[in-house]
Amino acid sequence: MKILVMGGAGMIGRKLAERLAKDGQLGGKAITGMVLYDVVPGEKPAAAAFPVTILSGDVADPKEAPRLVADRPDVIFQLAAIVSGEAEQEFEKGYRINMDGGRQLLEALRAIGHKPRIVFASSIAVFGAPFPDAIGDEFFQTPLTSYGTQKAICELLISDYSRKGFVDGVSIRLPTICVRPGKPNKAASGFFSNIMREPLAGQEAILPVSDDVRHWHASPRAAVGFMIHAATMDTAVLGARRALSMPGVSVTVGEQIAALRKVAGDEVVARIKRVPDPFIDKIVEGWPRNFVTKRAVALGFEADASFEEIIRIHIADELGGKIA
Amino acid sequence: MKILVMGGAGMIGRKLAERLAKDGQLGGKAITGMVLYDVVPGEKPAAAAFPVTILSGDVADPKEAPRLVADRPDVIFQLAAIVSGEAEQEFEKGYRINMDGGRQLLEALRAIGHKPRIVFASSIAVFGAPFPDAIGDEFFQTPLTSYGTQKAICELLISDYSRKGFVDGVSIRLPTICVRPGKPNKAASGFFSNIMREPLAGQEAILPVSDDVRHWHASPRAAVGFMIHAATMDTAVLGARRALSMPGVSVTVGEQIAALRKVAGDEVVARIKRVPDPFIDKIVEGWPRNFVTKRAVALGFEADASFEEIIRIHIADELGGKIA
Repeated sequence: MKILVMGGAGMIGRKLAERLAKDGQLGGKAITGMVLYDVVPGEKPAAAAFPVTILSGDVADPKEAPRLVADRPDVIFQLAAIVSGEAEQEFEKGYRINMDGGRQLLEALRAIGHKPRIVFASSIAVFGAPFPDAIGDEFFQTPLTSYGTQKAICELLISDYSRKGFVDGVSIRLPTICVRPGKPNKAASGFFSNIMREPLAGQEAILPVSDDVRHWHASPRAAVGFMIHAATMDTAVLGARRALSMPGVSVTVGEQIAALRKVAGDEVVARIKRVPDPFIDKIVEGWPRNFVTKRAVALGFEADASFEEIIRIHIADELGGKIA
Repeated sequence: MKILVMGGAGMIGRKLAERLAKDGQLGGKAITGMVLYDVVPGEKPAAAAFPVTILSGDVADPKEAPRLVADRPDVIFQLAAIVSGEAEQEFEKGYRINMDGGRQLLEALRAIGHKPRIVFASSIAVFGAPFPDAIGDEFFQTPLTSYGTQKAICELLISDYSRKGFVDGVSIRLPTICVRPGKPNKAASGFFSNIMREPLAGQEAILPVSDDVRHWHASPRAAVGFMIHAATMDTAVLGARRALSMPGVSVTVGEQIAALRKVAGDEVVARIKRVPDPFIDKIVEGWPRNFVTKRAVALGFEADASFEEIIRIHIADELGGKIA
């Protein structure tokens, strides 16, 4: 079982590689080698008992995909992308990396007649407001960003290439990842994680929106679980509908804070400072708030049990079990 | 008002060009020139009181789109495509013509900073079974053909380029065109037209499916009307949702035949021969049967009044008012 992780230096890519290294197998088959590919060199997971190759390059360079698929990986995790804000500001770069990069991977596989499982990291950004109260499995794709457009196009390509028998693909639309480890970033969605991560680490965090803003979350651990499940599931049951909205936890910011209070206490919660920002409020208004992911749940994808669990996972996986 | 019709030698393209030539104006503005572009040279409509330029070439050649947009047409009708069956059999050609051709048009416009109205002829092939009884405006796109995939991708691109302000596009999903003039063809959908057109012309026609097969139709005249309306409507009300399912007439084959009997009598209907074909029956099972196109109707798109009207339009427009 040979594995290729494209986007292997990103947050989810790294955690996925660590999980695969720890497990040593995927779907009951021993992993015999893993390639981690990204625009910058990634890191070998310490635990890996199999050879790990670190490669870097420009995923949109037409020579890259043929190079990456030449040794016929059995499973390809396609997480390589530039993020939403960058794709919105750099129009050409977004299409080049997020759309052409994905298409070239499919074409390279078709060219050599190799048909691996592909797990494509899509996004709830394929949806655009106005929404129903909860977005169902048959709601249409009307992205409000170029990033969302590029993800929706790759979903369509993966479904068509799978239908034609060129690859065996699954597109999984990830919820917003929370609690995102690392430093606060400038993404408009950053505060969902910031108001958890920073207080737990003894730092203040700014909350720019009101407590009744609702959003759709999954922990990094759950996201890695989705990837593994998508890589090992029986795809015959998907038919031609190979894009799935992943299950998640729908909570308001107020409920996030209540969960933090329960897990970590008043002192930690007191580190959240409310500084309303109408600009961010306006952006967040256009985002999905809730889903009904019957199909993914029936297929065995498992969300976090609650937002409290999401916080506890962060404390366990990132803070060594300790709250500041 | 300068107009470019891409796919100007096709059935709808020709009828659109004739209508524009007859009207002499579009949206109240005099037409000062029209370019008809296709893979083969089209025909100048006889009635045109303005200059008509006939151009031909390969729409997927990267040099073509810049050439076509160089004189900055005010309205572009993008109907250039290979059909469903051909795109399914010739995978590379389908993506090249139907997807890359469309994308290169958008890129050529962005490159010169020209922002025309684009009317893109999309298709109900963006939808794939299983369906609800009637497909609503918010039903998801799960094409079951490469053709439908390519149309869905172009819809996404047109919406994103419009949202970014690079073009002002509208994608209209045409019902099956009926009664399609010309000779019987081998398309699986051909019989819907054949069983009307051939008997009206004194010929026998084969009906390969049962009378209870339901489908979604528009006359060529209605389709041209959709194009004109999409070219002249206020697009501000569309927001970011620029793909619209067009209204149509949902009838069973039995209702088609009853309408033919009413318009043309028993003798004409007797020319339909029932020769069941399980292969075609199976294909047709996966096709949309009915729609609820509230949005398009509210925006002023007008379907044929009934299937009888569809037949009468064929007799008026193609048969000089006479039934054989």
